[in-house]
Amino acid sequence: MTEIRSEFIEQAKQLTRNAEVLPSGNDGGIGELAAKLQYAHDTQKPLRIKLGMDPTRPDLHLGHTVVMRKLKEFQKLGHKIVLIVGGATAMIGDPSGKSETRPALTKEQVDKNANTYLEQMAKVLDVTDAEITNNADWLHKLSFMELLQLAGKVTVAQMMTRDDFAKRYAEGKPIAIHEFFYPLMQAYDSVAIDSDIELGGTDQRFNTLLGRDIQTAYGKKYPQLVMMLPLLEGTDGVVKMSKTYPEHCISLTDSAKDMFGKLMSIPDNIITRYFSLLTDVGKYELETMDKQIETKAINPRDLKMKLAHLITEEYHGKEGADKAQEDFINVVSNKGIPDDIEDIKIDAEINILDLLVKLNFVQSKGEAKRLIQGGGVKLDGEKILDMSLSIPSGLNKVLQAGKRKFAKLV
Amino acid sequence: MTEIRSEFIEQAKQLTRNAEVLPSGNDGGIGELAAKLQYAHDTQKPLRIKLGMDPTRPDLHLGHTVVMRKLKEFQKLGHKIVLIVGGATAMIGDPSGKSETRPALTKEQVDKNANTYLEQMAKVLDVTDAEITNNADWLHKLSFMELLQLAGKVTVAQMMTRDDFAKRYAEGKPIAIHEFFYPLMQAYDSVAIDSDIELGGTDQRFNTLLGRDIQTAYGKKYPQLVMMLPLLEGTDGVVKMSKTYPEHCISLTDSAKDMFGKLMSIPDNIITRYFSLLTDVGKYELETMDKQIETKAINPRDLKMKLAHLITEEYHGKEGADKAQEDFINVVSNKGIPDDIEDIKIDAEINILDLLVKLNFVQSKGEAKRLIQGGGVKLDGEKILDMSLSIPSGLNKVLQAGKRKFAKLV
Repeated sequence: MTEIRSEFIEQAKQLTRNAEVLPSGNDGGIGELAAKLQYAHDTQKPLRIKLGMDPTRPDLHLGHTVVMRKLKEFQKLGHKIVLIVGGATAMIGDPSGKSETRPALTKEQVDKNANTYLEQMAKVLDVTDAEITNNADWLHKLSFMELLQLAGKVTVAQMMTRDDFAKRYAEGKPIAIHEFFYPLMQAYDSVAIDSDIELGGTDQRFNTLLGRDIQTAYGKKYPQLVMMLPLLEGTDGVVKMSKTYPEHCISLTDSAKDMFGKLMSIPDNIITRYFSLLTDVGKYELETMDKQIETKAINPRDLKMKLAHLITEEYHGKEGADKAQEDFINVVSNKGIPDDIEDIKIDAEINILDLLVKLNFVQSKGEAKRLIQGGGVKLDGEKILDMSLSIPSGLNKVLQAGKRKFAKLV
Repeated sequence: MTEIRSEFIEQAKQLTRNAEVLPSGNDGGIGELAAKLQYAHDTQKPLRIKLGMDPTRPDLHLGHTVVMRKLKEFQKLGHKIVLIVGGATAMIGDPSGKSETRPALTKEQVDKNANTYLEQMAKVLDVTDAEITNNADWLHKLSFMELLQLAGKVTVAQMMTRDDFAKRYAEGKPIAIHEFFYPLMQAYDSVAIDSDIELGGTDQRFNTLLGRDIQTAYGKKYPQLVMMLPLLEGTDGVVKMSKTYPEHCISLTDSAKDMFGKLMSIPDNIITRYFSLLTDVGKYELETMDKQIETKAINPRDLKMKLAHLITEEYHGKEGADKAQEDFINVVSNKGIPDDIEDIKIDAEINILDLLVKLNFVQSKGEAKRLIQGGGVKLDGEKILDMSLSIPSGLNKVLQAGKRKFAKLV
């Protein structure tokens, strides 16, 4: 066995920040990763780093950037990013017709969504240098016999070790046979693009490790390593960030103001986690922050301000971040009311719930009710409690919904 | 609902002799079967009766003829037999490489075996009037998406209701994912050939009923009925007839003498079962025989003689059956030694085990040993017990192995 030079051990250690390498061996996978890095260097063959993209969900949020930032690290070291648009899977949808979350997309929709995805991704890494592929290109070409050969590589018991399958089977909920093919297809992608490392969220553990097994079954001597990145919590610090909870989700397309405001709303206990997963702030600085928070040597609000500025700057430039920060401070110093509130003309008397929906302050009347019940809706600073309240024309008061939404009703 | 005329109720009752119809409903499926028969008659559209053939096992035995005789009944009523050579499955074999019983066959081997199969089948029914198909013709053309759509029609839990899957899963034995496709393929065959009735042994219950479900999933309003035929016991009356136990298996290619002899060896308790499953003897006659055996009004040997003659005649003609019967009687009247024994010249002293193998009386020395241990090897009627016995040249005695193998050693 070749000796691994310390340079690559160091590089591997850097790369595993925030990440879990699988298989982890006795050293957390550092040795195997370092060996791949050294081999790539010595043979002048960049590593092929795989990431699968789901074109059915093209709206990216900060949670997605955790993996993308790791890709960027590899890219900076000269390795090749291979992005796989899951076109084959997206075009199948759910043939059993039972899942509404798996609508079948047309080829055009897939292409359109993939472009949206890449545009957003370009905010984090150099997409032009990446290899963009679509797994329909090889999966749709598999013949009947090739597909069955693929299926022959895995057993039912193996599939059933995947958490969600095991859970559904135990609960007597149906699992259609074709669902076994989604992990198989993702695994076969690793064969098709000959990946050396696959990145994924911790929910991808089974699928990515299967990729390793399938590569081996198809004769690859040194199959891919897996790097699992953590799932980012939403701004409530509890549930993982997801479009399902829009109020705790920061989209890459959010305005500078929204992004900054949402970041300022995170609980203190996840400040350094956000720094670690979403910025380049170094290990020493992170430890210092942890100590400062613990000993109350610093107001957490100041750290959040720094975090919010750093991240907002990444997506909206320095000017955008400066302006967002300024606005935020104004809101706070003006007792929560900013100075640049838009005038909204009320033409005819309107119910408060309808108005909140009309202004896009909430998504539904249900949400409006809940917000009022929680005391989150105010008129000139006074809480509204009556849901049947009618707003007349020419009221000339400031309506506030939640912490950051304002309108002057005229 | 159309009223079913009694003519077709009667026909359905005739056809269900020995068979179980699924779904059985409250009337054993008679009503549904009669409805199909009547509809076929009234619309002048013969029913399409499906039988799958496994080209990996082309050697047919009497057990196979139980289903084939049922096909013949439908054929006589003017319906269409559709035989499906399982080419697609045979050409896949076992991609996991774990099953030796599923070797992958080439297209040429499949065709050759299918021909052998059909030649033997022709001894029972009119193969020239049947539609011969090969499921490779449609299965190999399924695209990736069509195949996944097919897989989407069935759940893992459904598959696991198949006895052998359930058993293996419970025992922790591997089931490769592709194995789920064998029943799915067989089921899809029913869609492809648009079958009205599928025949099969009782071990085909799951697969054939799945065909019904899959036809429905693909939009067929009146999916196929299933007719399950019993598995025939071997001549020991215990284990199902199979090539695995050649001594209890009667091949369609057996000589008249062997066929007759083996049939004479069956135990009394399965005589009427053999009559019922393997001959046209009517219901009344069967009941009479049952009574005769029960009241000892007849020597069962005489009934067996009739059975053996009937069946042997079917495969070897009247002359062949007569000759076989005559030989059999001679053997018995000569205290078990027939008169037309071949002379075998012993050139040099030879061990008894080696001699038995050389004469093809047994397949191996192991079988020879077991036969001697069981007292089944005799010299001029005296049991041989010494396995190291040497047979010299010019012994001039009759060697007997088992009940029906003889040679005069000279």
